[in-house]
Amino acid sequence: MDFLSIITAKKLGQELSGEQIRFFARGAADGSVPDYQLSALLMAIRLNGMTERETNELTLAMAQTGDMLEPDVGGVPVDKHSTGGVGDTTTLVLAPLVAACGGKVLKMSGRGLGHTGGTIDKLESIPGMRVSLPEEEFVDIVRRVGCAVVGQSRELAPADKRLYALRDVTATVDSIPLIASSILSKKFAAGARAIVLDVKFGSGAIMDTMEKTLDLACTMVQIGTLAGRKVIAVISSMEEPLGTHIGNALEVKEAVDILSGQAGGDLKEVSLFLGSQMLVASGVCPDEESALSRLTEALESGRGLAKLKEMIRAQGGDDRVCDDVSLLPQAPLIVPVIAEKGGYLSQMDTAALGNAAQAMGAGRRTKEDVIDPAVGIVMRKRLGDLVAPGDTLATLYARTEESAQAAAAVVREALVFSEAPAQKPKLIFAVVTPDGIRKY
Amino acid sequence: MDFLSIITAKKLGQELSGEQIRFFARGAADGSVPDYQLSALLMAIRLNGMTERETNELTLAMAQTGDMLEPDVGGVPVDKHSTGGVGDTTTLVLAPLVAACGGKVLKMSGRGLGHTGGTIDKLESIPGMRVSLPEEEFVDIVRRVGCAVVGQSRELAPADKRLYALRDVTATVDSIPLIASSILSKKFAAGARAIVLDVKFGSGAIMDTMEKTLDLACTMVQIGTLAGRKVIAVISSMEEPLGTHIGNALEVKEAVDILSGQAGGDLKEVSLFLGSQMLVASGVCPDEESALSRLTEALESGRGLAKLKEMIRAQGGDDRVCDDVSLLPQAPLIVPVIAEKGGYLSQMDTAALGNAAQAMGAGRRTKEDVIDPAVGIVMRKRLGDLVAPGDTLATLYARTEESAQAAAAVVREALVFSEAPAQKPKLIFAVVTPDGIRKY
Repeated sequence: MDFLSIITAKKLGQELSGEQIRFFARGAADGSVPDYQLSALLMAIRLNGMTERETNELTLAMAQTGDMLEPDVGGVPVDKHSTGGVGDTTTLVLAPLVAACGGKVLKMSGRGLGHTGGTIDKLESIPGMRVSLPEEEFVDIVRRVGCAVVGQSRELAPADKRLYALRDVTATVDSIPLIASSILSKKFAAGARAIVLDVKFGSGAIMDTMEKTLDLACTMVQIGTLAGRKVIAVISSMEEPLGTHIGNALEVKEAVDILSGQAGGDLKEVSLFLGSQMLVASGVCPDEESALSRLTEALESGRGLAKLKEMIRAQGGDDRVCDDVSLLPQAPLIVPVIAEKGGYLSQMDTAALGNAAQAMGAGRRTKEDVIDPAVGIVMRKRLGDLVAPGDTLATLYARTEESAQAAAAVVREALVFSEAPAQKPKLIFAVVTPDGIRKY
Repeated sequence: MDFLSIITAKKLGQELSGEQIRFFARGAADGSVPDYQLSALLMAIRLNGMTERETNELTLAMAQTGDMLEPDVGGVPVDKHSTGGVGDTTTLVLAPLVAACGGKVLKMSGRGLGHTGGTIDKLESIPGMRVSLPEEEFVDIVRRVGCAVVGQSRELAPADKRLYALRDVTATVDSIPLIASSILSKKFAAGARAIVLDVKFGSGAIMDTMEKTLDLACTMVQIGTLAGRKVIAVISSMEEPLGTHIGNALEVKEAVDILSGQAGGDLKEVSLFLGSQMLVASGVCPDEESALSRLTEALESGRGLAKLKEMIRAQGGDDRVCDDVSLLPQAPLIVPVIAEKGGYLSQMDTAALGNAAQAMGAGRRTKEDVIDPAVGIVMRKRLGDLVAPGDTLATLYARTEESAQAAAAVVREALVFSEAPAQKPKLIFAVVTPDGIRKY
């Protein structure tokens, strides 16, 4: 087979055959197709699209370029994936809660890049925590404890690694078939049988309209169904940071605060909602309502927090951070950002807030950067709040005066005030299952 | 400026600014933009197109990535370019004829690649002929003799070289703005003020419909006009090889035969027609009719052949080949291809015939291949001819028995016979000038 004929077919708007798609995925994984040909095909796919069948075959073909794990965790392995958010610590809240309700959470997470955080970086702020475990040990923890969160211990879906890097530099990120196949190929390879997708919508999200966001969600649910996996997609708001805390140790603290009943808010609400979908998707609970009440019971009884401690201990971490969050890394400088003007907080540039925390040291600009686990931003106001001049908008946890000043300027710039009362945005827009779309 | 934003703009179907286009051309020429980004943009241009203004600016920007020559040849420097044909030796016929009528033919030609021949390879079959001349000497020959044909002595429009190679391997050849800017950027850089374009249509041509062929021709005429050059595009047939001879020395022989009055046919007719457009474009003759009659007179009087000898001599070649074509390289084997069935010759796969000659040694498969000047094919039948079994379809001039047998099979395969009388195709379809389209 000749790669030029594959580019030509997609350029002419034709449907690619399964054989052509497998040739593409293998060529991306083994390096036999050069970058310049892959990027021409990626652009042709971005502009001419792919059918449901093509996207499905691409996802499977990409998954099969590496190992396909089939972990025996004593139940249905369930995973959750977010398309990328700011202050989005749902994994650390829901993984122990779902495990406390009998779910088997097999979570392979990534590191942060750009304005979005990464769960692995957050976990590493816990002293002693090991996030790179041999596969057997990882599976054993899931079987015994009910949840484990690790980075990829070996290369799954290697085709995706190469295509993802190329898409980033060729303006072909915003393609539904390419996003869907990228996300699901890795989940399929890791062995998840039930997958809950948190598809973000708003000022920090990949897709710019609700129509495209729904289209992406539906595509992923269909691919999962065709591949014999149970996939549920939740469309949730990213109009403001989900939690109030942005930064690695700060986000662990917020998760502990929620599990110990000392904090609530949007992060708690979305975590419970996504967790309920995981229990339904993996067949542990028959419906959303029963799942929600079991999760709430696990949270209020303290069993969720106990499960988090158990997981941290199993992964070598110091579980005393769950009783005393001051054992987490602490930033030397704590600086408030004071409101200079007042009004209703009507809009936030969520990506800008994520970038500000990254610039303080909470994230990476390049893959080689080292994370500062202690630094970050705690937002003190939410969308819809009435703010008076002199109020504290946010608290900065900084390493240097300089970085705090720069972050303060971004925070002020990122918040828009209006004279008229502003509505708090909806938190959950829709749930997509194989049976259809349920709007909220 | 950031190349990603340029790819993004074209992906979204936006018009690129002059500044963005110049950044693209420079980045292609100096290597600062990597192949994978160039090929993503090429595909976005292929699928979303370019406006007339963008195509015009791209052509100028590509020309300006190298030197812009302004040769003083004692008249208007006129060039001719074909989009690529088989058995297409018009240059060797028309250059001396136009020079004999007072034109100044400044011809920079290419080498053959793929199924199409190259004038430079053909000229090199003449003993002693130099096709690589210092610029001053080249310009001096045009000034004194009226015509010279050389390969590019230095790198003109270097952006085109890189983009052309990439287009070939990324299925982005068939884009009107990319074809037009590629052809004209080199002509502008070489200093041609009048340019006649021979845009081929048929089984050996780039564009697959007459609509696109006309669109390409109109685009190039418009770009030329905007750049202050006189461009005329002729749409001519490539449904069968233009001349009867395919192969390097064989095509020189056919050109000599025409200039000495011993041969006629389509090659002669198209050469005279293109030559007349060159005389009109460069202002030597007021109209096509007067130009045609002057060219015919130059041919019949022998002044054209004398001019060819003069040019060959000036370029160091043995001009006795014009009196005795047996001085050209001769193939050891001459093998007829005999018709096994009869009927009206209704269709030819022109590209396949070009490929067959290439496989015999007349062309290159890769740039490193060495040409065999003696070998090739002489077609004995034209479209529309009634053929009887046992007739000679073609004569093969071969180096080995094996290569002759392979070529004979391709020739037989490439010819389609019908029971009903088949029409000879039109030779000239249309002429496009800044004043409009004239159909024939």
